[in-house]
Amino acid sequence: MRAAVFNGPGSVTVAERPDPKIEAPTDAIVRVVLSCVCGSDLWYYRGLTPHEHGSIGHEFIGTVEEVGADVAGLPIGGLVIAPFIFSDGSCPHCRNGSTISCTQGGIFGNGTFDGGQGEAVRVPLAASTLVPVPGTGYSEAMLRSLLTLSDVMGTGHHANVSAGVGRGSVVAVVGDGAVGLCAVIAARRLGAARIVVLSRNPERQQLARDFGATDVVAERGEAADEILLAMTGGTGVDAALECVGTDQSIATAFAVARPGSNVGIVGIPHGAVPVTEAFFRNVGWRGGPAPTRLYIPELLDDVLTGAIDPGRVFTYEADLEHVADAYEAMDTRRAIKSLVRVGGP
Amino acid sequence: MRAAVFNGPGSVTVAERPDPKIEAPTDAIVRVVLSCVCGSDLWYYRGLTPHEHGSIGHEFIGTVEEVGADVAGLPIGGLVIAPFIFSDGSCPHCRNGSTISCTQGGIFGNGTFDGGQGEAVRVPLAASTLVPVPGTGYSEAMLRSLLTLSDVMGTGHHANVSAGVGRGSVVAVVGDGAVGLCAVIAARRLGAARIVVLSRNPERQQLARDFGATDVVAERGEAADEILLAMTGGTGVDAALECVGTDQSIATAFAVARPGSNVGIVGIPHGAVPVTEAFFRNVGWRGGPAPTRLYIPELLDDVLTGAIDPGRVFTYEADLEHVADAYEAMDTRRAIKSLVRVGGP
Repeated sequence: MRAAVFNGPGSVTVAERPDPKIEAPTDAIVRVVLSCVCGSDLWYYRGLTPHEHGSIGHEFIGTVEEVGADVAGLPIGGLVIAPFIFSDGSCPHCRNGSTISCTQGGIFGNGTFDGGQGEAVRVPLAASTLVPVPGTGYSEAMLRSLLTLSDVMGTGHHANVSAGVGRGSVVAVVGDGAVGLCAVIAARRLGAARIVVLSRNPERQQLARDFGATDVVAERGEAADEILLAMTGGTGVDAALECVGTDQSIATAFAVARPGSNVGIVGIPHGAVPVTEAFFRNVGWRGGPAPTRLYIPELLDDVLTGAIDPGRVFTYEADLEHVADAYEAMDTRRAIKSLVRVGGP
Repeated sequence: MRAAVFNGPGSVTVAERPDPKIEAPTDAIVRVVLSCVCGSDLWYYRGLTPHEHGSIGHEFIGTVEEVGADVAGLPIGGLVIAPFIFSDGSCPHCRNGSTISCTQGGIFGNGTFDGGQGEAVRVPLAASTLVPVPGTGYSEAMLRSLLTLSDVMGTGHHANVSAGVGRGSVVAVVGDGAVGLCAVIAARRLGAARIVVLSRNPERQQLARDFGATDVVAERGEAADEILLAMTGGTGVDAALECVGTDQSIATAFAVARPGSNVGIVGIPHGAVPVTEAFFRNVGWRGGPAPTRLYIPELLDDVLTGAIDPGRVFTYEADLEHVADAYEAMDTRRAIKSLVRVGGP
C-alpha cells in the first residue's frame, strides 16, 4: 500500500509499505478515508521530538475492511473513528479512565504500527478501540468533523475537563491552533459563560468567535496577562487552558489562572512550569494526552446533530501523494490544520 | 507582652513586644492558650526561606479578650481557633474557596502581624477569621487537637482534598511529619480503603498506624517506588500526598501516582517536579497552603466527638519562655511537632 513515511526531520514522503494483515484475532483492518497532520507531528518534523523512521500519523477515520475472529460490533464497510491510541478498555488504567496509559496500548504511526497517513491500518484491540459511526451518507463537512474526534477535538475537550470547566466558568484559551480552537468549542459546549482566546491571527480570531469565543486578546506575554486580569477584575480566570506548550504560553496560563483553579495542559510542555508561584496560589495543573476513546461517544452525538462543527479547523487539504505539502502548510502556519484525503467513504 | 521573636536563622528568642490593641472595628484581641511550631517555621529557622525579623508563629487557639465595634459572634472569654491566614470571607478568592489568597488577608507571625507564639494577638477581620469552639471544659487532649485545626490537620486534609481522595481510594502518604500523619487521619476520615505511609521512624510508624495507616513502607527513593507499585499490582495509587517538598519526596509522589490521578502537594516544593513524565501519564498536581478556615467547621465536629485525635502529633512541649527549645526539638527531629504552652483556657 501507499503510506507516508517519516524519514527524519523535515522529510515526510510517500512510499510503499506492506499491506496490513490480521495478525491477532482482536485486529481489524481499516481502509483510511481521511487523515490529517497533528501539532505533535510537527514537533517530529521540526526535529524537536524524536520519532522512529517509518509510519506516521495517528488521526484517521475509515471503513472496516476485515476483522479478526474475536472482533464483534464492527460491521464490514462501516465507518469508524480511531482514537489516536489503541486500548483494551479493560486494564486498570482504562477502567480508571486513562485509556492513553493502557497496559496493552500503543499509538498509531509511531514508526512501527501503521499510521493514519496511509491507505490502510491494522488496528490492534479493534473492538475496544474503534468507534462505529451510525448512519450513512455523511456530508463532506460532517466527515471532517468526525475526523477531529480522533484527536484534536477530544484534546480540546480534555483541556476543559482537566481544568474543571463547567456551567458559568470564565475560561482563557491560550493558543489559537487547532487544539485551542477545539478547546473553545468544548468550553462553550460545557456551558462556559465567558471564553477568552489569545490570538493575533485574523482568520483564527474569526473562527474562534464562530466557535463561541466571547473575547479575543491579541497581545502576548505579560501584556496579555495584564489584560486578562483586568477583564476579570483582577481575580483571574476559573480555568486556563494551555494548548501550546512553550515557555510563554505556560507562563501566561499560570499567571491568569485564579487562586484555587486548575490549568488544563494539553500542549506537550516544552517550557518551564512556575511550580513555586503556582503552589502559593493553589493553582493546580492537570492534563496530558487525551483519552479520546472515552470522549468520542458524547462528542459524536454533537457532531451528528450538527451542534458542533470542529471540522472547520481544516483549512488546507492535500491528497496522500502530497502529504509533504500538508506538513509544510502547517509548519509555516499557512494552515490551521491540514487534512490528508486518502480514500472515499 | 511576652512573645517569640525571630532574630534570624537559628535564633528564636522571647522578648517584650507591644501589647496588641484594637486598631480597626473588625479586629479582635485574642489571649493565646496554646501555640506550636510549624514545619514551615523550620524553613525560616534553617535559613532556607527568608523571614522578617520580628513576630513568628501562625498557629494558635485562645480566648477572646476584646472585640472591635463591627465584630459579632465572638463572645468575650470564649475559646476560638485561628486559621493561620486571616481572611474577609467575602472577596472573590474567599468566595471561590481560596481564603489563603484573600485580597485583604495576611499571615500571622510574619514579622509584623502578631504571631501565635506570644501572649496575645491582634486578629484582623476577626469575625470572618476566628472560629468559636462550642461548649466549655475541654480536656487537655482536646485542646491539643483543637490547636491542630489552625494549620496542620487542615493541611493534611487539604492534601487529600487536592488529590481527590474519596471512599475506596488507595492513598500513599509521602512524609511522616505532623502534616503527613494528619493526612493519614484525613484519608481515613474520607473513606480511603488503603493508606500507605512512608516512614522509617518507629514512633511515627506506630502513630500512623494508630491514625489509620494500613501499610508502612520504610524504604525511600526508587526502592520505595518499586514497593508501592508492587503493592498496587503495578498500577500505582489513586492519590499520592506530597507532604515534604524535597526532590526525593516529590519524585516518589509522582512515580507512584497512577495515570490519571492527582498528586496532592502541601509540602512547600523545594525540589524538581517531573513535568514531562507527569504530562504523558496524565498525573495532575494540585495543592498549596490550605484554606483551613473553610475546613475548620467540619473537622471541628470530629474533634469534639473524639472521632479524630490529631493532637497526638505533639510529642514535645515547652512554655513560651522556652520556645527556642521547641524549635530545637523539631529541628533535630526529636519531636514530631512541638507544642508551645502560653496561657490557661
